[in-house]
Amino acid sequence: MYTVEELQNSVSAEIEKRSKELLRNQPVELYAPIKYSLDMGGKRLRPVLVLLAFNMFSEAIEKAIPAAVGIEVFHNFTLLHDDIMDKADVRRSRPTVHKQFSENAAILSGDAMAFQSYRYFLEQRSEALPEVLEVFSKTAIEVCEGQQFDMDFEQRMDVTEAEYLEMIRLKTAVLLACSLKVGALLANAPENLANQLYDFGINLGLAFQLQDDLLDTFGDQAVFGKQIGGDILANKKTFLLINALAKASENEKAALISWIEKTDFDPKEKIAAVTGLYQSIGVKNIAEEKVNDFFNRAIRILDDLNVQDVVKQPLRNLAHKMLTRKH
Amino acid sequence: MYTVEELQNSVSAEIEKRSKELLRNQPVELYAPIKYSLDMGGKRLRPVLVLLAFNMFSEAIEKAIPAAVGIEVFHNFTLLHDDIMDKADVRRSRPTVHKQFSENAAILSGDAMAFQSYRYFLEQRSEALPEVLEVFSKTAIEVCEGQQFDMDFEQRMDVTEAEYLEMIRLKTAVLLACSLKVGALLANAPENLANQLYDFGINLGLAFQLQDDLLDTFGDQAVFGKQIGGDILANKKTFLLINALAKASENEKAALISWIEKTDFDPKEKIAAVTGLYQSIGVKNIAEEKVNDFFNRAIRILDDLNVQDVVKQPLRNLAHKMLTRKH
Repeated sequence: MYTVEELQNSVSAEIEKRSKELLRNQPVELYAPIKYSLDMGGKRLRPVLVLLAFNMFSEAIEKAIPAAVGIEVFHNFTLLHDDIMDKADVRRSRPTVHKQFSENAAILSGDAMAFQSYRYFLEQRSEALPEVLEVFSKTAIEVCEGQQFDMDFEQRMDVTEAEYLEMIRLKTAVLLACSLKVGALLANAPENLANQLYDFGINLGLAFQLQDDLLDTFGDQAVFGKQIGGDILANKKTFLLINALAKASENEKAALISWIEKTDFDPKEKIAAVTGLYQSIGVKNIAEEKVNDFFNRAIRILDDLNVQDVVKQPLRNLAHKMLTRKH
Repeated sequence: MYTVEELQNSVSAEIEKRSKELLRNQPVELYAPIKYSLDMGGKRLRPVLVLLAFNMFSEAIEKAIPAAVGIEVFHNFTLLHDDIMDKADVRRSRPTVHKQFSENAAILSGDAMAFQSYRYFLEQRSEALPEVLEVFSKTAIEVCEGQQFDMDFEQRMDVTEAEYLEMIRLKTAVLLACSLKVGALLANAPENLANQLYDFGINLGLAFQLQDDLLDTFGDQAVFGKQIGGDILANKKTFLLINALAKASENEKAALISWIEKTDFDPKEKIAAVTGLYQSIGVKNIAEEKVNDFFNRAIRILDDLNVQDVVKQPLRNLAHKMLTRKH
């Protein structure tokens, strides 16, 4: 069994190697943005999930490394295109690809990354490959659906909690779940165990994203790494806002809506006012309970998984680490 | 053996059916642009090539239909993204997707189409699937490379004929070649025959694209369907312009460059002047000879293919039809 740190190191080294290899191709205008994106680093969470799931059933992790790289390249592709659509100028404290290069570069290099991710998957010709590619392709489309729902919600004030949860399931959770299932399938794990790991990933992903919503408003700027209050300034229909609107008194609701509709305001003042409203309406607690709910469901699924307990430990460790970060 | 028309009808009906099916998915904002794009029609040339190659080795064309649809969906994905990058507002006499919907829609629905094309490929679990997906993924990246070269060439005045031919090989020819190879592989054709069909496709594709350059300048507007002279107005580094610059007298070259650099001009006047220069420099003949060169190479490869001659006839017919269109 490998530790999370060992897997993280393996996969980071491999991504660095692949990223350099890609830059040997022509035209450099296509490949430089890809390298820029992959070199930004990050936690490499999704490829680590591939390897953790694989390692539950097999020690030969080199067989899962190309697919792990493929998942990370796919994830970075979504960042390139999402950042254009969301007009996001900064990611991990650096200019996003469409700012550093151009929108056309972000579109086209993103496209090339999507196809390159398949090429990495195709490097290992396991029997499970068609099923792996089916799960991956279905997931990729779901991620597009999630991004579309997210954009659609910007125009709507009547988004329900159920709609929001479905959106974050598609946009965030399915890729974590897919990573685990792909890892298990590549190790020839029984189908039902691969599916249980998928369900574990969905619940972990939902907890993870809801916690991200919480941190965006209530986190510690220094540890969170992003501007606190960004969701509030963008009027994002997060779990907090949806629940605040649903549970507010008439006065609180009027105050919330007036902040949402205001076009001329001091950002700090808006963040403080809306955060205060969230506190008094009590949505922080509701969101924290929901995070715990999904997290506990994930852990129960992992507990029920029919493998030796010691084998589950690295994944359990990672899940706890994911949910206790940054606050 | 099926005729080209029969295959065209089968594949058109299937694409129409799949396009309707896709629109049943949510969110409609993601799927409506996909249906809009697929419903624009067109010659369905690439899926017909899949089926023609398949049909050379097998009568069970239903096994190749999903891959044929996948190739067409991929081709349409490239149109969505290229039209954003090239700022093209009209295609097949209708607004392009980013004009009809939005740029974000064209990016994201395009992405979903790219992944959906893999899902269509994955419907038929043949033994050849991994190799088919490898050829397809490699081709998809090459098409991105071709588009990048094409954009890079806009900024350059020193593009060589060899660079131009490599660009159109990547941007246009490899997908025709890939379609043929995929069809052959799915029918379990021997590898060397599949590769010969690929080479046939490359040469046919080069002839086809060079002829498109010729038609853009010397075609008959009514039959060509596009504005004649578009390449001249956009100063596109086509085979004609590259050769004209290389073969012009000093006076002709100065005249050409002055037209290229002019920012204020009457479009009709520029088209007439540059077309006249092309005529006097003699690049029309050079281009026509090059088209014939590549076409004849393609036909020779087909002649040499080790299958009965009657089996090659539909593909030979299509090749002739492709190269005698519209003038």
